[in-house]
Amino acid sequence: MEKTVSTPELAEQVLARCDRLASFSEDSGSLRRTFLSPPMRDVHREIASWLDPLGINPRVDAAGNLHALYPPGWNSGPRLLIGSHLDTVPNAGHYDGILGVVIAAALIEAVNGEQLPYAIELIGFSDEEGTRFGIPFIGSRALVGRVDDSLLSQQDATGISVRRAIQDFGLNSDDIANAGLSQDVRGYLEFHIEQGPVLEQLGLPLAAVEAIAGQTRMEFTFLGRANHAGTTPMRLRADAVAGAAEWITIVEQEANATPGLITTVGSVTTLPGVANVIARETRVALDIRHRSDDIRLRAIEQLTAQANQICQRRGLSIKHNTRLNQSAVAMDAFLVDQIEIAIHAAGSNPHRMVSGAGHDAMILAEKLPSAMIFLRTPGGISHDAAESVLMQDVEKALACGIYLLHQLAAAPEFLKGAHCA
Amino acid sequence: MEKTVSTPELAEQVLARCDRLASFSEDSGSLRRTFLSPPMRDVHREIASWLDPLGINPRVDAAGNLHALYPPGWNSGPRLLIGSHLDTVPNAGHYDGILGVVIAAALIEAVNGEQLPYAIELIGFSDEEGTRFGIPFIGSRALVGRVDDSLLSQQDATGISVRRAIQDFGLNSDDIANAGLSQDVRGYLEFHIEQGPVLEQLGLPLAAVEAIAGQTRMEFTFLGRANHAGTTPMRLRADAVAGAAEWITIVEQEANATPGLITTVGSVTTLPGVANVIARETRVALDIRHRSDDIRLRAIEQLTAQANQICQRRGLSIKHNTRLNQSAVAMDAFLVDQIEIAIHAAGSNPHRMVSGAGHDAMILAEKLPSAMIFLRTPGGISHDAAESVLMQDVEKALACGIYLLHQLAAAPEFLKGAHCA
Repeated sequence: MEKTVSTPELAEQVLARCDRLASFSEDSGSLRRTFLSPPMRDVHREIASWLDPLGINPRVDAAGNLHALYPPGWNSGPRLLIGSHLDTVPNAGHYDGILGVVIAAALIEAVNGEQLPYAIELIGFSDEEGTRFGIPFIGSRALVGRVDDSLLSQQDATGISVRRAIQDFGLNSDDIANAGLSQDVRGYLEFHIEQGPVLEQLGLPLAAVEAIAGQTRMEFTFLGRANHAGTTPMRLRADAVAGAAEWITIVEQEANATPGLITTVGSVTTLPGVANVIARETRVALDIRHRSDDIRLRAIEQLTAQANQICQRRGLSIKHNTRLNQSAVAMDAFLVDQIEIAIHAAGSNPHRMVSGAGHDAMILAEKLPSAMIFLRTPGGISHDAAESVLMQDVEKALACGIYLLHQLAAAPEFLKGAHCA
Repeated sequence: MEKTVSTPELAEQVLARCDRLASFSEDSGSLRRTFLSPPMRDVHREIASWLDPLGINPRVDAAGNLHALYPPGWNSGPRLLIGSHLDTVPNAGHYDGILGVVIAAALIEAVNGEQLPYAIELIGFSDEEGTRFGIPFIGSRALVGRVDDSLLSQQDATGISVRRAIQDFGLNSDDIANAGLSQDVRGYLEFHIEQGPVLEQLGLPLAAVEAIAGQTRMEFTFLGRANHAGTTPMRLRADAVAGAAEWITIVEQEANATPGLITTVGSVTTLPGVANVIARETRVALDIRHRSDDIRLRAIEQLTAQANQICQRRGLSIKHNTRLNQSAVAMDAFLVDQIEIAIHAAGSNPHRMVSGAGHDAMILAEKLPSAMIFLRTPGGISHDAAESVLMQDVEKALACGIYLLHQLAAAPEFLKGAHCA
């Protein structure tokens, strides 16, 4: 079969396909597609219809992930996974996750007929957002053997367990172990929208992701004494709001003073929370991220010490607890280099960046050389119906992808797995 | 009739009477007594039983206020009001308001048999807290002619209007106009617990209140852009929490730098209020008080300008609105001087202070020379079942009150009303 489509035509087709997949939703009027919900079956069927003319028949594994294999040019060869997730948040846009799977299909179409020394396996993960069960990455966890009984027993808002949802979809949760990665897989590539404003600010279409930031979420509770706002002189107060405010400004300063450190206080709650009563309690949520676990943990130590100092000086006490503690994940150095070369070959300035958000690549990196290519996100807007991507950037991503596939075909370290740990 | 009670005995009786009145509650197990609720009738009956041996029969006016007249030693003479309020907040202590009425009864008992050149009128206001209708000072408003149709139509949580509550208690709301002050009233004295920590800190039992602070309540809304906490670099944020926190620290500094200024941020609300999302909106409640209206209004101007500057620098916008704007009220200079002399005579160091909270005296001061005597409040604890007062301080208050009554008997300016505006 001869190549019949150019990159601009492919890019146009990619966007049309993303729009088409967005029509398969649990909600009418907006897009929501959670783990193994009925519209996920439509998505699988739709993607299969694109691959059918290429003679490729996808399969769905026991965790609901879609797999489609473009075989190697010889009888055997290693395997490269390309994909992302097919589930969405509520009121989602058309591209988060989806775009990476649609690009994988387009790349297979682009190289269709070529004899590559490795197989390309498109993968569409069943769950990355965690919308239905409150636990993200069910799809990619299955590939690294991290779907256990506890996860399978987790229930959604209507009391249906992950196990039951798998059965209801016509799959067998007992086969989950077989969804694990096979020995011949050499790497994982994920195209994904940046979901942030960095590339737009730089005027660049693409970036090579070199790491996924580690992340800690904590809650700090400042405890003071409730008192009458009119009768308590300033010097006799133990004001939980004033102490928390002082600390929040330091949290921001710490990030501004530490390259790459990202800190966010997204939630502040006051008790009793009445205009004319000095607050006895203020709860502050801290989200802190960095590509270096050391720097992140040192910053947490620093900020905790400063919260203690503020409280001591003000006659407050403090409690804190950690809600989430996730280590940073480095992307595979060899693959990141290759992505940079491919971006350059596609005519763009290669830019390396850290992903502040978690992605499937973070999970697969536990077992597999993994890397990501970010596409510019207009306005940084994501997780919203207004999410978008530029046609010209998709074209660049496709060009980059095609160069990358050819580079890997000529890279003995990749074919022999020398880059694997 | 001869005086048969000493001040220590009177003080003991005052505390026992406060405890007795606390037994008349709408709630079982805690004290709540709102405007013309059934237990208010028990309170009126109980107080009448104390005055009955003195030949005094109290009356209840159309606004539910209790009045009891100790007549002048001659056929006629001017009148001095002494009292406070008989209603409570929910889960109240035994002294807020009540103590001032019980002390008034004790002072009448102490001077009973003496021929004073003026009448003493005990007054127990029906509502100061505003617990039932959300509008405070119904009782004292009636005395200055500020109970209008709009106030009478106000409804409680069960849909009963003020007018209906008055009728249900057996009173006639059409007579409210007759509840106004008569021409011969020369002044109003109110004994009240401080409800703050100042006297305790100073080691003093009593203070002369020279002013009631003016008070403004505002809401400042900081408006930014919601964004992903992981993917949005620090320099590209418009973070409504960070801006608000910076401002809250300035609000506190402004008060610390301005003598007598009291500022409180008691409530902070964040939207969407999610740990991993930069807040698009933060609402901050400001309570600001000072005895000088000029200083309070200048501070508001200053803080508003600083909020604007912070927002401009950070790419935020700001809205603010004023919920309450109440001018400061000076207490009557002649009465404050007399109180100071009486405190001294009672053997205490006279201290003058500003009341940060509103009181009935604030309303009566519109029409009448008014002044207050504060009693030390252990721990500054009030509006709580743990509210307390020291026996020895009540004794000082009674001694101070008796001196004061005798001073006024000998003060031509008071008897002739020369100190009235």
